[in-house]
Amino acid sequence: MRIEIVAVGTELLLGQIADTNSRWMGEHLAAIGVASHFHQAVGDNQERIVLALRTALARSDGVIVCGGLGPTHDDITRDAIAEVMNVPLERDDGVVEKIRALFSSRGREMPDSNLRQADVPVGAVVIPQTKGTAPGLVCPVGHKVVYAVPGVPYEMSDMFDRAIAPDLVGRMADRGETTGVIASRVIRTWGMSESGLAETLADHIDHLDAAPQRAGGPAGTQRAGGAATVAFLASGIEGIKVRVTVRGADAEVASALLDEEEARIRDILTAAAGDVVFGVDDEAIEDAVARALAVDGLTVGLAESLTGGLAASRLVNVPGASRWFRGSVVSYASEVKFSVLGVPEGPVVSEEAARAMADGARRVLGADVGLSITGVAGPDPQDDQPPGTVFVGLARPGSDTESFAFTVPGDRDRVRQYATIAALDLLRRTVGRPPGGRVGSGSAR
Amino acid sequence: MRIEIVAVGTELLLGQIADTNSRWMGEHLAAIGVASHFHQAVGDNQERIVLALRTALARSDGVIVCGGLGPTHDDITRDAIAEVMNVPLERDDGVVEKIRALFSSRGREMPDSNLRQADVPVGAVVIPQTKGTAPGLVCPVGHKVVYAVPGVPYEMSDMFDRAIAPDLVGRMADRGETTGVIASRVIRTWGMSESGLAETLADHIDHLDAAPQRAGGPAGTQRAGGAATVAFLASGIEGIKVRVTVRGADAEVASALLDEEEARIRDILTAAAGDVVFGVDDEAIEDAVARALAVDGLTVGLAESLTGGLAASRLVNVPGASRWFRGSVVSYASEVKFSVLGVPEGPVVSEEAARAMADGARRVLGADVGLSITGVAGPDPQDDQPPGTVFVGLARPGSDTESFAFTVPGDRDRVRQYATIAALDLLRRTVGRPPGGRVGSGSAR
Repeated sequence: MRIEIVAVGTELLLGQIADTNSRWMGEHLAAIGVASHFHQAVGDNQERIVLALRTALARSDGVIVCGGLGPTHDDITRDAIAEVMNVPLERDDGVVEKIRALFSSRGREMPDSNLRQADVPVGAVVIPQTKGTAPGLVCPVGHKVVYAVPGVPYEMSDMFDRAIAPDLVGRMADRGETTGVIASRVIRTWGMSESGLAETLADHIDHLDAAPQRAGGPAGTQRAGGAATVAFLASGIEGIKVRVTVRGADAEVASALLDEEEARIRDILTAAAGDVVFGVDDEAIEDAVARALAVDGLTVGLAESLTGGLAASRLVNVPGASRWFRGSVVSYASEVKFSVLGVPEGPVVSEEAARAMADGARRVLGADVGLSITGVAGPDPQDDQPPGTVFVGLARPGSDTESFAFTVPGDRDRVRQYATIAALDLLRRTVGRPPGGRVGSGSAR
Repeated sequence: MRIEIVAVGTELLLGQIADTNSRWMGEHLAAIGVASHFHQAVGDNQERIVLALRTALARSDGVIVCGGLGPTHDDITRDAIAEVMNVPLERDDGVVEKIRALFSSRGREMPDSNLRQADVPVGAVVIPQTKGTAPGLVCPVGHKVVYAVPGVPYEMSDMFDRAIAPDLVGRMADRGETTGVIASRVIRTWGMSESGLAETLADHIDHLDAAPQRAGGPAGTQRAGGAATVAFLASGIEGIKVRVTVRGADAEVASALLDEEEARIRDILTAAAGDVVFGVDDEAIEDAVARALAVDGLTVGLAESLTGGLAASRLVNVPGASRWFRGSVVSYASEVKFSVLGVPEGPVVSEEAARAMADGARRVLGADVGLSITGVAGPDPQDDQPPGTVFVGLARPGSDTESFAFTVPGDRDRVRQYATIAALDLLRRTVGRPPGGRVGSGSAR
């Protein structure tokens, strides 16, 4: 099964926004074993959308067209699909009612232009919306298919997971194609460089590359099993990711292969560098903090200067954070550090200030553990410290209040992001340990 | 002149890397007045690259193909171009020497595989490398052209600026085309729906569509000036964007056309819906807050419950925030609201609590203006209020403390993001007004 992705929007051609949708769909098509040999982007022009769809249908088994389903005059994907199907559009009363209900639930009148979104090519099946107004479409074109989804990323991904992926898997089964799955898992690390990780895992990767294809599923299914492949992703600032990819006869087999491989990689990394793995897949550093605090049922309070509330805003992302997160004193002005947190007057970018802030956070917020972050985002130095300087304070029961010094790279925004993750990583490593025990290193990445 | 971009690389189709090159080239083609109606991505497969190139040449005047020029066995763009040109490849001795020299300047032996990079389709002209090993190519195909550039972003952009853009401008002049520029500006709004904006601007858009091509440059240059086009972008949660695009003889003319059109659209929107425009292009809501506070030199302090530090972390994004931002009390636990902010014990998701939090923030943080955000992120109700309930409090000099109630859609994360932007929008609208003046509506989007 070969599916081509067609992204619609003049803003894509003009480079005004990045086409993150095609990338997301490419990744998720591969995950269910669907090949994608071509992607296209096209502007908000009916003739050209029609041409792009016809080109795609000529060289693939189906198309996912993304965008151009909004309520305005330049949203013409529906019209283009109807032209390709050679059918008229017909207003769907069920969709009209859903859109009207959505508006009235928000206490607003539905503008007439939204009615356009209820126009459906005759013969197409609606993918109901759960998040916005524009429904998706499943449109048969001969024995091929055109799926249409909105360009809003979370509406697109919802419809892909809920309707398109199951439909594709059904079509592949009908065609007698093996629906083996390619599955991958991302092991998330903080504290090692990409080259350090690669060197630590080099022997293991050589071993995998040399391994014969292993049986990962029922005998006779050629694509059922195989050795894992390992890749490193230095994607952004959330640490280095180690991605393991396997192919299995079904999701269960693939998952077992991934478990096995994850355990092996964790063992190798822990033996070489300690507690550098903080989670897998979408688990973020704040999820690891929540897990570490839960061990002893501790609560935490923050005092943030440099990071301006960023660390707190990450902690509240964790469902159930109210059980262990007390709050944060964002003491951006120095006087707030003195008056609210009780920091002694003097330089506020120092290890002493970081410790006093952590003590203050613990006391003022009534928390078991106090974590503080102060430093210099730049571009100018402060208190004689250069941009990128970060001090983290940590106050916890039964231990002296500690402080840690880092230097992190990048501009204002990146300094803040790095400092946040580094501080939360310290918290994660520390609260799981016995009082008085010190964490090894304060490496920022 | 219409140029299609073809990005080569299986990793693009699999979603393993983002196609930032096509975006960059789309933006830079537009800047020199070259239209781009289609982009394609294709994997490392000669047959499919050939098909993508033929498809592109059939519907555009030329192609820029990006990637697949490396030294390894899967770098086959050169072979595909030779097939499309129907010519053989020939090793270019000059290129061999350049690559060899590059290696020896780095004290390394050139691997034989790099010789592939010196293979040039007969009839093509080499774009010399200045940064890496793979040369670019300018390949005539009938009266059309295929440009090939490496996929390494800084090598691609260097060759584009140095060779492709000048070559395209020359071809446009030969064709008698005016080499005007396409420029656009994004007008950013908060408080109106996409369809509401579209209806408000419908008459104006009809007027633009009906307008004859206006002279935007020297007389006689048919494409030098033109009516603006207007599009709406509901990109994520940062409000609805109105994008205006114009074509002008040069950057100065285009900029003047944009100024004119921006002023007209601001007038129409302000007359219909009040102060809904908060900025242009990359200006975010926090930049608008900073501007509004600067008018009277006011400082602000926050009290955040629902948003957990998110509002504070946005305000510190603005360079120079320390001049007007005091800090935030992230009072996630109810006891912190009582003990630190002086909120009376009782329900903490209420207009009363929001006002007490705003007063508390102003007092505790020593700020001129106090802004508070409380509410329910979900999934469970709190204090009998459903998820999506948001209360904002605003305390400022010379006015009674006010509160505002919203309902915002979405999951936990979106509720928080919406609430943050809605609260900052209220702050922006309010602090610019005389004391006692009330803002009109508390619409969340």
